[in-house]
Amino acid sequence: MRVLVLHGPNLNLLGTREPEIYGKTTLAEIDARLATLAKEQAIEIRIHQTSHEGQLVDHIHDAARWAAGIVLNAAAYTHTSIAIRDAIKGIGLPTVEVHLSNPHAREEFRHVSLIAPVCVGTVSGFGADSYTLGLRALLGYLRRA
Amino acid sequence: MRVLVLHGPNLNLLGTREPEIYGKTTLAEIDARLATLAKEQAIEIRIHQTSHEGQLVDHIHDAARWAAGIVLNAAAYTHTSIAIRDAIKGIGLPTVEVHLSNPHAREEFRHVSLIAPVCVGTVSGFGADSYTLGLRALLGYLRRA
Amino acid sequence: MRVLVLHGPNLNLLGTREPEIYGKTTLAEIDARLATLAKEQAIEIRIHQTSHEGQLVDHIHDAARWAAGIVLNAAAYTHTSIAIRDAIKGIGLPTVEVHLSNPHAREEFRHVSLIAPVCVGTVSGFGADSYTLGLRALLGYLRRA
Amino acid sequence: MRVLVLHGPNLNLLGTREPEIYGKTTLAEIDARLATLAKEQAIEIRIHQTSHEGQLVDHIHDAARWAAGIVLNAAAYTHTSIAIRDAIKGIGLPTVEVHLSNPHAREEFRHVSLIAPVCVGTVSGFGADSYTLGLRALLGYLRRA
Amino acid sequence: MRVLVLHGPNLNLLGTREPEIYGKTTLAEIDARLATLAKEQAIEIRIHQTSHEGQLVDHIHDAARWAAGIVLNAAAYTHTSIAIRDAIKGIGLPTVEVHLSNPHAREEFRHVSLIAPVCVGTVSGFGADSYTLGLRALLGYLRRA
Amino acid sequence: MRVLVLHGPNLNLLGTREPEIYGKTTLAEIDARLATLAKEQAIEIRIHQTSHEGQLVDHIHDAARWAAGIVLNAAAYTHTSIAIRDAIKGIGLPTVEVHLSNPHAREEFRHVSLIAPVCVGTVSGFGADSYTLGLRALLGYLRRA
Amino acid sequence: MRVLVLHGPNLNLLGTREPEIYGKTTLAEIDARLATLAKEQAIEIRIHQTSHEGQLVDHIHDAARWAAGIVLNAAAYTHTSIAIRDAIKGIGLPTVEVHLSNPHAREEFRHVSLIAPVCVGTVSGFGADSYTLGLRALLGYLRRA
Amino acid sequence: MRVLVLHGPNLNLLGTREPEIYGKTTLAEIDARLATLAKEQAIEIRIHQTSHEGQLVDHIHDAARWAAGIVLNAAAYTHTSIAIRDAIKGIGLPTVEVHLSNPHAREEFRHVSLIAPVCVGTVSGFGADSYTLGLRALLGYLRRA
Amino acid sequence: MRVLVLHGPNLNLLGTREPEIYGKTTLAEIDARLATLAKEQAIEIRIHQTSHEGQLVDHIHDAARWAAGIVLNAAAYTHTSIAIRDAIKGIGLPTVEVHLSNPHAREEFRHVSLIAPVCVGTVSGFGADSYTLGLRALLGYLRRA
Amino acid sequence: MRVLVLHGPNLNLLGTREPEIYGKTTLAEIDARLATLAKEQAIEIRIHQTSHEGQLVDHIHDAARWAAGIVLNAAAYTHTSIAIRDAIKGIGLPTVEVHLSNPHAREEFRHVSLIAPVCVGTVSGFGADSYTLGLRALLGYLRRA
Amino acid sequence: MRVLVLHGPNLNLLGTREPEIYGKTTLAEIDARLATLAKEQAIEIRIHQTSHEGQLVDHIHDAARWAAGIVLNAAAYTHTSIAIRDAIKGIGLPTVEVHLSNPHAREEFRHVSLIAPVCVGTVSGFGADSYTLGLRALLGYLRRA
Amino acid sequence: MRVLVLHGPNLNLLGTREPEIYGKTTLAEIDARLATLAKEQAIEIRIHQTSHEGQLVDHIHDAARWAAGIVLNAAAYTHTSIAIRDAIKGIGLPTVEVHLSNPHAREEFRHVSLIAPVCVGTVSGFGADSYTLGLRALLGYLRRA
Repeated sequence: MRVLVLHGPNLNLLGTREPEIYGKTTLAEIDARLATLAKEQAIEIRIHQTSHEGQLVDHIHDAARWAAGIVLNAAAYTHTSIAIRDAIKGIGLPTVEVHLSNPHAREEFRHVSLIAPVCVGTVSGFGADSYTLGLRALLGYLRRA
Repeated sequence: MRVLVLHGPNLNLLGTREPEIYGKTTLAEIDARLATLAKEQAIEIRIHQTSHEGQLVDHIHDAARWAAGIVLNAAAYTHTSIAIRDAIKGIGLPTVEVHLSNPHAREEFRHVSLIAPVCVGTVSGFGADSYTLGLRALLGYLRRA
Repeated sequence: MRVLVLHGPNLNLLGTREPEIYGKTTLAEIDARLATLAKEQAIEIRIHQTSHEGQLVDHIHDAARWAAGIVLNAAAYTHTSIAIRDAIKGIGLPTVEVHLSNPHAREEFRHVSLIAPVCVGTVSGFGADSYTLGLRALLGYLRRA
Repeated sequence: MRVLVLHGPNLNLLGTREPEIYGKTTLAEIDARLATLAKEQAIEIRIHQTSHEGQLVDHIHDAARWAAGIVLNAAAYTHTSIAIRDAIKGIGLPTVEVHLSNPHAREEFRHVSLIAPVCVGTVSGFGADSYTLGLRALLGYLRRA
Repeated sequence: MRVLVLHGPNLNLLGTREPEIYGKTTLAEIDARLATLAKEQAIEIRIHQTSHEGQLVDHIHDAARWAAGIVLNAAAYTHTSIAIRDAIKGIGLPTVEVHLSNPHAREEFRHVSLIAPVCVGTVSGFGADSYTLGLRALLGYLRRA
Repeated sequence: MRVLVLHGPNLNLLGTREPEIYGKTTLAEIDARLATLAKEQAIEIRIHQTSHEGQLVDHIHDAARWAAGIVLNAAAYTHTSIAIRDAIKGIGLPTVEVHLSNPHAREEFRHVSLIAPVCVGTVSGFGADSYTLGLRALLGYLRRA
Repeated sequence: MRVLVLHGPNLNLLGTREPEIYGKTTLAEIDARLATLAKEQAIEIRIHQTSHEGQLVDHIHDAARWAAGIVLNAAAYTHTSIAIRDAIKGIGLPTVEVHLSNPHAREEFRHVSLIAPVCVGTVSGFGADSYTLGLRALLGYLRRA
Repeated sequence: MRVLVLHGPNLNLLGTREPEIYGKTTLAEIDARLATLAKEQAIEIRIHQTSHEGQLVDHIHDAARWAAGIVLNAAAYTHTSIAIRDAIKGIGLPTVEVHLSNPHAREEFRHVSLIAPVCVGTVSGFGADSYTLGLRALLGYLRRA
Repeated sequence: MRVLVLHGPNLNLLGTREPEIYGKTTLAEIDARLATLAKEQAIEIRIHQTSHEGQLVDHIHDAARWAAGIVLNAAAYTHTSIAIRDAIKGIGLPTVEVHLSNPHAREEFRHVSLIAPVCVGTVSGFGADSYTLGLRALLGYLRRA
Repeated sequence: MRVLVLHGPNLNLLGTREPEIYGKTTLAEIDARLATLAKEQAIEIRIHQTSHEGQLVDHIHDAARWAAGIVLNAAAYTHTSIAIRDAIKGIGLPTVEVHLSNPHAREEFRHVSLIAPVCVGTVSGFGADSYTLGLRALLGYLRRA
Repeated sequence: MRVLVLHGPNLNLLGTREPEIYGKTTLAEIDARLATLAKEQAIEIRIHQTSHEGQLVDHIHDAARWAAGIVLNAAAYTHTSIAIRDAIKGIGLPTVEVHLSNPHAREEFRHVSLIAPVCVGTVSGFGADSYTLGLRALLGYLRRA
Repeated sequence: MRVLVLHGPNLNLLGTREPEIYGKTTLAEIDARLATLAKEQAIEIRIHQTSHEGQLVDHIHDAARWAAGIVLNAAAYTHTSIAIRDAIKGIGLPTVEVHLSNPHAREEFRHVSLIAPVCVGTVSGFGADSYTLGLRALLGYLRRA
């Protein structure tokens, strides 16, 4: 079983950027934790980070050829990208939405998620744990299906 | 370490009610799964279900005296209850919001959560797994704190 | 055939409260008229009044075990209670919404009914007659089904 | 006692049009049921159907000369016609609003009724029964007045 | 002359809860200050606190039998409860709305009061003083009437 | 110089309809006053009343062949008819909007005029005088042009 | 009979300011036309222009002591001044609202009039004629009263 | 194969009316172009123009008896007529919406189409070509079905 | 201790203006009651009334030099003046907002207070008592500080 | 004459993605049909697909150097991209907006087109035919210009 | 070349008022910096500060007689004054809008500028530098014209 | 001291695109003026233009390694890009927002800036001067810091 993990815009800044909101964990540390969990669960994961909406769409399209599901932190594009929503719906792979912080506790424009309605579910607010919980949630879903 | 698990209105119907949205798992089965996980994690959980907003508030107040955190599925009151929000904020215990289904994929009035901004984070859309993932998320949070 | 008649918040005040809006008929008189009609139609009715949202939900849950349908005047909760809406949808019994006055001729916040979309239909504006017409409507619906 | 029954736009299609929403009863069958009830209640009814807003207004004006009340299904014009509202208010005859389906369970633009605030009350959602219940409601109102 | 003082949801937490918003005074201290003022003014007061909307409604109904007026801090229900509004309007007793903090200086959803339009007036923002000023305001109103 | 005076829906009820809003003057009396003023000003007027939106449009089209301008009381259609707006703009004749009552002092849906932006100006609130002032306004405009 | 004519903010610029909207007539010419009409109608008028909201309020207060009515062009304050609205309502003199241009054909923020609901009526869009028609309208109203 | 072409309100003015928006082509020229295309495609077309909403509804009802599809320019009624929408949905014939100009490049109230959701598709902005392209689109649709 | 009492626009009309809303007490009587209370409390008060927004701002600025706090009835400017809000925030003196009537029971545009968020608290709805209660509230606040 | 045909995000999925909305035709088949039509019309077309907003902008800029017009299906970016709108307006080439499905029959956020106001016109809802009709529409426009 | 510099409401408080938002520079210091720049640029400036909306309007009118342009910080009136907007548009002098702080980073009601649409441009957020940059911007504009 | 100057989407068209809005200056000319100013101020600037949102984000990230501040014209993305906002906030460099035209004088969707709240300030409406003034503003800010 193979899973795509997608990090959206600005997540490369993690650990340096607004630590009061996102914590001090770097993206590399999150990826390491995901790798450990993947090993433990005997699955393969592939991880990409990009701040380009179009590349996120392309990665999602590409996943249709090899992945069983997607863990996606679309970050800022969560609230503005119909293109990513259409990509997820178009390929039909089960997708779990994750967020480091709790968007509902921040600015009003972060309260709307264009992506949530086409995802299996959402895990948000637990920092790096959001990713590992999100991957667990996806695996639970795939194994039940 | 002790944790309160609160099931809000109509969750007693689980397993019979709208299975196309909420699945066939009953509340007793969810509670059993939570009990197993609690044992595994060496914590104590206490579980209550009520359809009364005031009783949810009272349970939250009561938890301030004995619990380290709360896993809360406020169901319908998620979208309408400032009283529950004020109770969570008032006692100051870390609280994790869980939902069986994905509110963002349902009616528009379910897209607003009055409770999310005072919670650590949210897990929604994974059926019974939302509860076990939510409890894991809470424990992770408590252990890091 | 058994039917639950539920009177929501403040309806116990009937006959004394704002007679220019609700008329002078008391709740006891309405119940008597419903009893007469029930006898005439050879059905059994059980009637409850409560101003507690949670108790309305509990009564609706309870009805799932014995009733063929519900006549519900949710009064103020018509406009604010997702919990009652979910209860009706959850148990799946045909429900008729009744109102003594015409909500559309009153304050704007009474123009929205959260409950109507999960009911068979609505009778409003005819004072005590709204209840007897509502019960007739429910019986017609049940007999056709 | 004479009563005007007015069928608004597209109601001539009844029985053929969208049976999943409006049922299979034809307008002729509804008119026959109303005739039977009228006879039973010893009143006279006159029935008109038109898809022209202006003709609905004209029929309402005309009723001021001979009718004691009106049973009106304004259909699509319910949500857009201030002219019909002004006609009802202008002649001052008691009017009962009826709908075959439950507008609150359909598109959002059907949730607003411009006509309800000038009517005695509303009966909606019971198919052909909405008319007979509406006529009963009107007679109850007229006999009490 | 007898007056009902009603404390709404979460006010039992007073003194411990969010002191930066509500101050350090406990509910018992507020009640003591009200008792002193009542004695001074030669009136009788009865005080209740509950976090249940339905019980607030029941207390208001009950007051109709013995009280001359009500001092009400509906707290969270101020912004969501049509049931409490209808109860106040239904019994017709002069009611004064009080708030410890200034709702207009807090979240947007606290800027709307469903209860204010049926009250004599409002005192908000003065902590415990809001209650004693509110009681004085009510007595002034009752003595002028 | 010839002018079309158009009375819209329900204006035939004038004098009998809601005298507290529209006064006791009948449409015939208004027409007589307009005839007197027309004579005085040495112009010819033609007057029509209809409650049909389509006929109002047809009358406006027809006026393009013989009239120098229009005095229009579109009544209820003022707030809903894009068709009448397009007709006025389409034929290009100077049009004066008149209203017996002041729409801004009535229901909110009467505060919007779809017709005003394509008219020379508006006279409203002066009862029958609105028509004679409106005709004077139109003549002033035509004579200056 | 004495009438106050009030010109609001920026009307002193008339004739030079945005002639494509307001025409080339100066305020002095409008005042002269009003003086002629006043003489013709055997009434006295007093005219003031000010761009200060507070002075408009003071002039309205002052009029309560000597005038029978007011012709008011509140210009920009039409859309923002509750103070002027309260002043008109407070003194209770019949007031006619006039505008040189048609506010409904301009920016959206000019479509709302806070003043219209407390005025007898409105004349707008006829340039300088709006004033003379407005004065005629006021006199008609006063003579009928 | 027979097709109804319906021209809505004010389209009879075409060629004279606001040529900067609608061009100089007359309705007769458009009808001629449609006739040519119909001949070319070996189909029969029947064409009606009316500014009456009710007549448009009647024409649509009538088409259910003889036509395979409809090309409809509802003009102003596009944005306000639920009656026409219900008629199209009621008879179930494939309908193509056409507009001479591009409603999205005009006033905001023209951005909403009540009719589009019940049509196969829309062609707008190409002047007279919108009709011939719309007819081609309908034929393509019918031939594929 | 010195306190500024500021009366805003139209309050000079008090006693004559809309007695059904504001009562029959004149401003002089309110000032007398405030003087009595000031004496009783051994403080000095200075009172100003003006209908000019700019003068209210100037008075507030001036108070920064001599006063310990402000009792402010901004009347109509409550809902529209950011300038007064900025003045209060700018000088930093504790300010109590008072209103004779209850703005929430009046027109919708009076439900918003731009001034409340920068005030200590609000007293509204008690007629002249609002001022004396407001002054008491301010003194309580100042003495606690 | 040369024309640019631009396919926006996710259109590469065509034929596999949500066939109930977009049909089974692949993008290659659409391109083939366009090529046939281009040959027939003796024009040259160049076709690009990309899911990157910035690349769509770059293609539009590039077209300014060689194309006579553009046929654009901006898909998801239709509703969110001001950048594409500015690009079209900036280069000034006639552009025709096409959509496979009818956006007005889908989610509300697809009812707004930021691109339509700067296009000649729109063809939507006819599947692959939308493209060929759109190209015909563009050629008609170019040949008339 | 002469330029008017206008400081709006509360700017006299500068240096003392909310230094965390506006900094510690006083208005006198800003005026001195502007004087230095004016000298350097060989122009004359006249500076006024007032908290009265009407006086700002009068100053703008007056400038039409002697100034080549205006640098305006309308402060609170930026968001509420149509009168100032009309004054600027009325006299037609090039005007530059300046703000000390960045209104878009503050309360929502400061995000709307009624004045910006009639100004050449805006400089905001740079404290005292906003004025000197604004004056430079105006001179650049005037010299290019 | 080194500064990044970023030109967003479509700015490469400058000088050819909509000269009535943006003027005739080309981007090369603006860059030349900025280079001159940079030399004069003894700083180094690096300039990039791209129409890709993701590349703008990447450039901002990159600047964190070498620049002291940013001058940013995000053009169309100003109103839609949360990703760019997060990038600026994430790296924490002082950023000045510039616009050639005045967005508040254009379409309503350009009145909202998602980027302004995370910038030091804004300069808009002065054509090419906006850039040089923006650079001066940034230098002033950096030198004061």
